[in-house]
Amino acid sequence: MKPLNVAVIGCGFMGRAHTNAHRKVWNFFDVPYRPVLKVICDVNEERAKKFAERWGFEGYETDYRKVMQRDDIDLVDICLPNNFHAEVAIAAAKAGKMIICEKPLARDGKEALAMVKAVEKAGVPNFVSFNYRRIPAVTLAKQLIEEGRLGRIFHYRAKFLQDWTISKDVPQGGDALWRLDVKAAGSGVTGDLLAHCIDTALWLNGSIEKVNAMTETFVKERLHQLTGKVEKVGIDDACAFLARFSNGSLATFESTRYARGHKALYTFEINGEHASIAWDLHDAHRLQWFDHRDQGKVRGWRSIHVTDHGGDHPYMDKWWVPGLMIGFEHSFVHQLNDFLVGVASGKPASPTFKEALETQYVCDAVLKSAKTGRWEKVKKV
Amino acid sequence: MKPLNVAVIGCGFMGRAHTNAHRKVWNFFDVPYRPVLKVICDVNEERAKKFAERWGFEGYETDYRKVMQRDDIDLVDICLPNNFHAEVAIAAAKAGKMIICEKPLARDGKEALAMVKAVEKAGVPNFVSFNYRRIPAVTLAKQLIEEGRLGRIFHYRAKFLQDWTISKDVPQGGDALWRLDVKAAGSGVTGDLLAHCIDTALWLNGSIEKVNAMTETFVKERLHQLTGKVEKVGIDDACAFLARFSNGSLATFESTRYARGHKALYTFEINGEHASIAWDLHDAHRLQWFDHRDQGKVRGWRSIHVTDHGGDHPYMDKWWVPGLMIGFEHSFVHQLNDFLVGVASGKPASPTFKEALETQYVCDAVLKSAKTGRWEKVKKV
Amino acid sequence: MKPLNVAVIGCGFMGRAHTNAHRKVWNFFDVPYRPVLKVICDVNEERAKKFAERWGFEGYETDYRKVMQRDDIDLVDICLPNNFHAEVAIAAAKAGKMIICEKPLARDGKEALAMVKAVEKAGVPNFVSFNYRRIPAVTLAKQLIEEGRLGRIFHYRAKFLQDWTISKDVPQGGDALWRLDVKAAGSGVTGDLLAHCIDTALWLNGSIEKVNAMTETFVKERLHQLTGKVEKVGIDDACAFLARFSNGSLATFESTRYARGHKALYTFEINGEHASIAWDLHDAHRLQWFDHRDQGKVRGWRSIHVTDHGGDHPYMDKWWVPGLMIGFEHSFVHQLNDFLVGVASGKPASPTFKEALETQYVCDAVLKSAKTGRWEKVKKV
Amino acid sequence: MKPLNVAVIGCGFMGRAHTNAHRKVWNFFDVPYRPVLKVICDVNEERAKKFAERWGFEGYETDYRKVMQRDDIDLVDICLPNNFHAEVAIAAAKAGKMIICEKPLARDGKEALAMVKAVEKAGVPNFVSFNYRRIPAVTLAKQLIEEGRLGRIFHYRAKFLQDWTISKDVPQGGDALWRLDVKAAGSGVTGDLLAHCIDTALWLNGSIEKVNAMTETFVKERLHQLTGKVEKVGIDDACAFLARFSNGSLATFESTRYARGHKALYTFEINGEHASIAWDLHDAHRLQWFDHRDQGKVRGWRSIHVTDHGGDHPYMDKWWVPGLMIGFEHSFVHQLNDFLVGVASGKPASPTFKEALETQYVCDAVLKSAKTGRWEKVKKV
Repeated sequence: MKPLNVAVIGCGFMGRAHTNAHRKVWNFFDVPYRPVLKVICDVNEERAKKFAERWGFEGYETDYRKVMQRDDIDLVDICLPNNFHAEVAIAAAKAGKMIICEKPLARDGKEALAMVKAVEKAGVPNFVSFNYRRIPAVTLAKQLIEEGRLGRIFHYRAKFLQDWTISKDVPQGGDALWRLDVKAAGSGVTGDLLAHCIDTALWLNGSIEKVNAMTETFVKERLHQLTGKVEKVGIDDACAFLARFSNGSLATFESTRYARGHKALYTFEINGEHASIAWDLHDAHRLQWFDHRDQGKVRGWRSIHVTDHGGDHPYMDKWWVPGLMIGFEHSFVHQLNDFLVGVASGKPASPTFKEALETQYVCDAVLKSAKTGRWEKVKKV
Repeated sequence: MKPLNVAVIGCGFMGRAHTNAHRKVWNFFDVPYRPVLKVICDVNEERAKKFAERWGFEGYETDYRKVMQRDDIDLVDICLPNNFHAEVAIAAAKAGKMIICEKPLARDGKEALAMVKAVEKAGVPNFVSFNYRRIPAVTLAKQLIEEGRLGRIFHYRAKFLQDWTISKDVPQGGDALWRLDVKAAGSGVTGDLLAHCIDTALWLNGSIEKVNAMTETFVKERLHQLTGKVEKVGIDDACAFLARFSNGSLATFESTRYARGHKALYTFEINGEHASIAWDLHDAHRLQWFDHRDQGKVRGWRSIHVTDHGGDHPYMDKWWVPGLMIGFEHSFVHQLNDFLVGVASGKPASPTFKEALETQYVCDAVLKSAKTGRWEKVKKV
Repeated sequence: MKPLNVAVIGCGFMGRAHTNAHRKVWNFFDVPYRPVLKVICDVNEERAKKFAERWGFEGYETDYRKVMQRDDIDLVDICLPNNFHAEVAIAAAKAGKMIICEKPLARDGKEALAMVKAVEKAGVPNFVSFNYRRIPAVTLAKQLIEEGRLGRIFHYRAKFLQDWTISKDVPQGGDALWRLDVKAAGSGVTGDLLAHCIDTALWLNGSIEKVNAMTETFVKERLHQLTGKVEKVGIDDACAFLARFSNGSLATFESTRYARGHKALYTFEINGEHASIAWDLHDAHRLQWFDHRDQGKVRGWRSIHVTDHGGDHPYMDKWWVPGLMIGFEHSFVHQLNDFLVGVASGKPASPTFKEALETQYVCDAVLKSAKTGRWEKVKKV
Repeated sequence: MKPLNVAVIGCGFMGRAHTNAHRKVWNFFDVPYRPVLKVICDVNEERAKKFAERWGFEGYETDYRKVMQRDDIDLVDICLPNNFHAEVAIAAAKAGKMIICEKPLARDGKEALAMVKAVEKAGVPNFVSFNYRRIPAVTLAKQLIEEGRLGRIFHYRAKFLQDWTISKDVPQGGDALWRLDVKAAGSGVTGDLLAHCIDTALWLNGSIEKVNAMTETFVKERLHQLTGKVEKVGIDDACAFLARFSNGSLATFESTRYARGHKALYTFEINGEHASIAWDLHDAHRLQWFDHRDQGKVRGWRSIHVTDHGGDHPYMDKWWVPGLMIGFEHSFVHQLNDFLVGVASGKPASPTFKEALETQYVCDAVLKSAKTGRWEKVKKV
């Protein structure tokens, strides 16, 4: 097991989640490379220092360009606000580093395309952290679909509901709240939450042909933490859209931060000719499965507690014993394992930057449709 | 308690449900009129005769026009396929009968408007059987909203999912399958299922300004039972639409008969500033309620088993004891009680024909938008 | 379809539930006899009169002995407090009437045995109303067990939880509260609620060999409505017991009226070698089914919505359409149908008085064990 | 933050869970001591070596006595089969080490008492790993009870259901299967699973006065992996018991490894005068809460998703963002944090060895009662 020197860029929520994965992955998985926490990078030196201490990094930097110049860094893990993804990723590609980038890949398709070109030119391993693919129940859904168990697909529906910005007193901009600042985030729920829904959908159900969307900004002005002034809110607070997939299925997508009672209710459901699947992030370890081929009198939705071993349930034999849940953070461990295995095997883990570009194009079409009020085609990757 | 002489027109599923309500309402409710099952009417004499025998009607007719001519009929209860609603209701209005009409009011807004004019000209009590309003949990939702507990409304979402027409071998047209025949039904899931969702939504959340829809017919041709030929399917198998309400809230609506695993999954959810409500026809006796004003540490979605007495839960003190469920058919009993009380008090139960016209106009806009691919305004009643 | 003249004895909650069944059964089922509501009997004339009017009885009586003398009565349906079951049933048997008796059969095994002897001597059809057997989901459980799908049975567990007597201000005795008066009821939750659990258990899992119980009376004194005095409470407020079945399985049973949050939470679960079953009266239309023979990766508890037609789900093809729930009262309709079919076919519906005697003997052993503090064998029928 | 040198004794399932906690606790909690993974100890050298490599221990030992002699070890963390708990813990106490011992404390009360005496004589910090107390939802339950919200307690019920030993082909004894070997385990489900239920119950609801139990061994003989012979099974496969608490409440407890469909279904429910609580390990992040003081019309069981921050939900502000679940292993992190804080503050975290002795005495009484067939009093600590 060779060491792999890691630089994590950014100390926020995602910096913690990615760092935790680097620390844990080799305790549980037989990885081909063992991540070594070489450096944490943050513009705020005090924060970088504390983070390095808390997580056991060997050192820290305050300028990401220094990281790129260091020969002892193999992998750059980007955990910054969206507006820095392109800049840092392109620099890392030029420096020949492997790259993991937190989702969404960029603020829009144009930025994302530049990133794709950069990594392809550099020929470096690259990966986008759409972590929900690696929740075991979601990975199981993928397996069931790939086995052809659902037959022709008729419907896909997904939503991602939160309720943390209902109060008008929540400001925008700055450390924890850059997601409300359109300059930093690029968009609101579309890039932040629907990007997850779209990534999963493309993975499970194939390409989306066209979309028809509406967006709304319920709170029009908020205090901006960087300027200290009340400023217009530029993001979409809520977004819903209709979609048609290439396979002929119909879809509805919805996301909002104004759904009282839901903290992170990401749900999806797929209805096929023979079977249906449903999943819910609030009870992430369960997959709902309905198979019409079951005998009539005992046919029903099965609540699969995706915690079994023996090769049955993805990733679970690496953890505890059957029946015992794992949590949110474990999806990052799984994807890191898959990324490392991909690097070693030469079969890159999905989604690469190029694969994630498709999600970006769907987001672009969604935001455009919300303005034009009509169906917009999704640009082909 | 005065007798009220009833003629039920139509012996199908709804004929049974309405007749059952006439037979039961006075056993449980203190109604001002006691329905007397005077006559059942069906074009098929054998069927009418058997139905009369099974349900205890005094007699039967095979021509609805005969019913209109009879002086001993007070109330005409229309349980026919949609294409006969206008004709029979207008005749009944002209004959001065009270009218209950099964939903949807008509095949389209034009027909519905003619019916509204007829009953208004005749001045007869009239009512449309959108029975789900009177499931106790749904009525409770209405009460909570009217008490202003939700605050500003941000989101409404509803769906009605079935799976009974997935097989290509299901024919269209004729007795039990007129719902697949566009001539008889007017539309597919839009008029049959979304009409329910729209009626509830208008009742709970006010007017819809505009909609943006898509429809699909997954199975393009089916054997027509009346002609014996394979014919093009004219109905919408599935329909989804975005909507904006007058109160500023956003909505998504979806219905299909191709959602494997769902027999009659009508669900709705409303997200307000302070509280949210969710309901599900498959567990119709429960209302899900989330109130953000609850203390933080014990805040959660409440599963209200709407079976309590003492005035707390609508209609329930008329039935058994707390904790014991009632079923689908009871919603018809409740609405019949409310209709009779409305007749006696002069305060008509809702929805009247005129109120139901609004649902028809939304359906019209939905079907138009599915063709134009853009937002369509809903005609004002 | 021959008429069957019915006398219902008692106007309470159960008088209503049984009468409703007599009124409805022939509308939905192809019964060999059509019940005719001949007479309602209650010691309170005013109440009897009103009840007759509300439910459409031809007349009323105030002395049950008059009913026995009438030649025009075929079936006596006993809906009285427990202390009158034996007296009235024995009189009815002597008068040669068919008998339906509300559960529990009697206050104790001795009374019950006398009733069994009386009906056997008279040779009259007889039946005890343990209605929960005929909730479709419970009947389905019975079918699955009889098909041998569970294999060797290891565990049975049942509970019946209520919360309506927690307040010390609830009085005992009299019309609605005779269940708290040991003279009228014989026992508390044991005869009222555990009798249901035991009946179902014996039906599904065979004989109980021995039991080991504890009981408690949390509120020691309550105002007695008949005497006007505060009197000692003689019933068991709560009872739990361990049991061993003849088939080698172990069981736990529990009932109480002090379980905050539960109105009528009757649940049971059976764990077999191959499969398990669980059910819950609060969501009575669902059966939970786990089959270990399902493929590992998609194995899970199935939530069977027991509302399907086509012969799959017991009784359901007689009601509405798939997906639509029925309620508490329908179990009485089902058992009445089965009783009538049993009378016509000569194959009596279960449980007869003799079959219900076994439940009574288990209750006797439970109450005895609660006093002796050790295992007590159940008397053989 | 001072370093704390740790020796983990045992490389099994629990060795992994405890080691993981030592590695993670200081990344998430502001602990007064930072655990340093000094040595892993296992009799199997190959296994010890591999474990050290995988988890980052500085070294390994194959004889626990060596560990006791080392001056550089502060904390001994015992993760061995039950039959080694007393021997190793007493040696560690004599060596003046702090001790964490995996549950149950010992095979019986006698062994446990010797351990209590040893640690008290030595005056070393000591703790037993009943980890489920520190699942946030369970800790929240404790808080709600301590705040007096439930009022007088009437009922407690707990069960722990598994299904992994149904097959007769599962052997007993040896590495992963010592739990089936009575010599190693002391008892079956009583010490393994009910010990958890009892620990939680004593913590939440106070002392148990007496119990009345039954046990069963469904599979009488199994291949013994250490002897290679088919031997009698000495453990209890299933155990159920009735109990009475000092506070007057009644309880039922049940555990089995023969409940098809349940992997690790530990559930408990408490019914108080004003409120009730229920919890379930299969959905460990949710607490069910019913408060009768809620307004009648919106009263219902609340499903509290115990993932909120801001001090509302125990431990959760140390992890991710609201709505995101944590898993099984996190309970070990929480208890390690509490242990370390206890050591630093001089207020020992619960349960200490002495507190865990009470659980052992309840287990002793349960196993005795299963033999005598009558109520047995629980020995006082």
